[in-house]
Amino acid sequence: MNLQSKIRNVQNFPKPGIGFKDITTLLGDGDAFKFAVDTIANNLERLGGVDIIVGPEARGFILGTPVAYKLGVGFVPIRKPGKLPSEVESYEYSLEYGTDILEIHKDAIAPGQKVAIVDDLLATGGTVAAASKLIEKLGGEVVSLQFLIELDFLKGRDKLNGYEVNSLVHYSAE
Amino acid sequence: MNLQSKIRNVQNFPKPGIGFKDITTLLGDGDAFKFAVDTIANNLERLGGVDIIVGPEARGFILGTPVAYKLGVGFVPIRKPGKLPSEVESYEYSLEYGTDILEIHKDAIAPGQKVAIVDDLLATGGTVAAASKLIEKLGGEVVSLQFLIELDFLKGRDKLNGYEVNSLVHYSAE
Repeated sequence: MNLQSKIRNVQNFPKPGIGFKDITTLLGDGDAFKFAVDTIANNLERLGGVDIIVGPEARGFILGTPVAYKLGVGFVPIRKPGKLPSEVESYEYSLEYGTDILEIHKDAIAPGQKVAIVDDLLATGGTVAAASKLIEKLGGEVVSLQFLIELDFLKGRDKLNGYEVNSLVHYSAE
Repeated sequence: MNLQSKIRNVQNFPKPGIGFKDITTLLGDGDAFKFAVDTIANNLERLGGVDIIVGPEARGFILGTPVAYKLGVGFVPIRKPGKLPSEVESYEYSLEYGTDILEIHKDAIAPGQKVAIVDDLLATGGTVAAASKLIEKLGGEVVSLQFLIELDFLKGRDKLNGYEVNSLVHYSAE
């Protein structure tokens, strides 16, 4: 299936000059959504399977949870500060301007567990690099990073050296 | 399966005196997560099926997407203002103090489509009532409201008169 044809380009969002990749048109198409989830799940099974799927707030919840469901494993959310109620591990990382913080529950991953991160978009790679650090702080092994979309021209993959990275749809230019 | 035993009670979150129902312990348990998703999907099949699942940001994404995947239908997110890139329908509703706004893409639901809303928690019912209004504005038919948890003592169900409402886990007191 040509997943790229299911993704809508919205010009000038969130600001002038940016072409936003809108995945809601893909999600709203039951067949396309199922194909995307099955493809990611099959990729992870080919890698030998995982114990846990991690997804960063909020759009990482959209693909990560059905992939976890399909594989029969648990799902762990990574959230912005103040959202997770129990004891958390935090990681602060740099953005173009300023910094951001992500949190994970300390007891969400056991040492030695095999973890895959699933997210909708690989752009500059900052969020998923931070998510990987959080998982490793808890002793988890990040076995794969799976994305629906990769913006190749932002070279986020360069920030993810040493990780297994896969994306279903690539954009080579904006 | 006793789903309630998989939900963690976190005292004094988000503020003193509140006992927070933490679903991350349930999500992290692959069997419990699968059981919750399958039960909601089976409930909807018994009602004659649906064309679309709608989930409100952000925790509504967590259960709504695997239910949509299981049923083979599309998923439509309802989000806070400014997050959806294309043309939206908005709905402003009252909270205890002040108001909140939810948005849905105008082309996300076609007139006559059968829609179920899936969310993690039915508390006072304000969010799901607003989400229902948005779906109806677009001509969709809200055939069911499905929740993982219902806080019976907040009487959110009273705000949802005329809708089919089902929750997997009930708390009769805080």
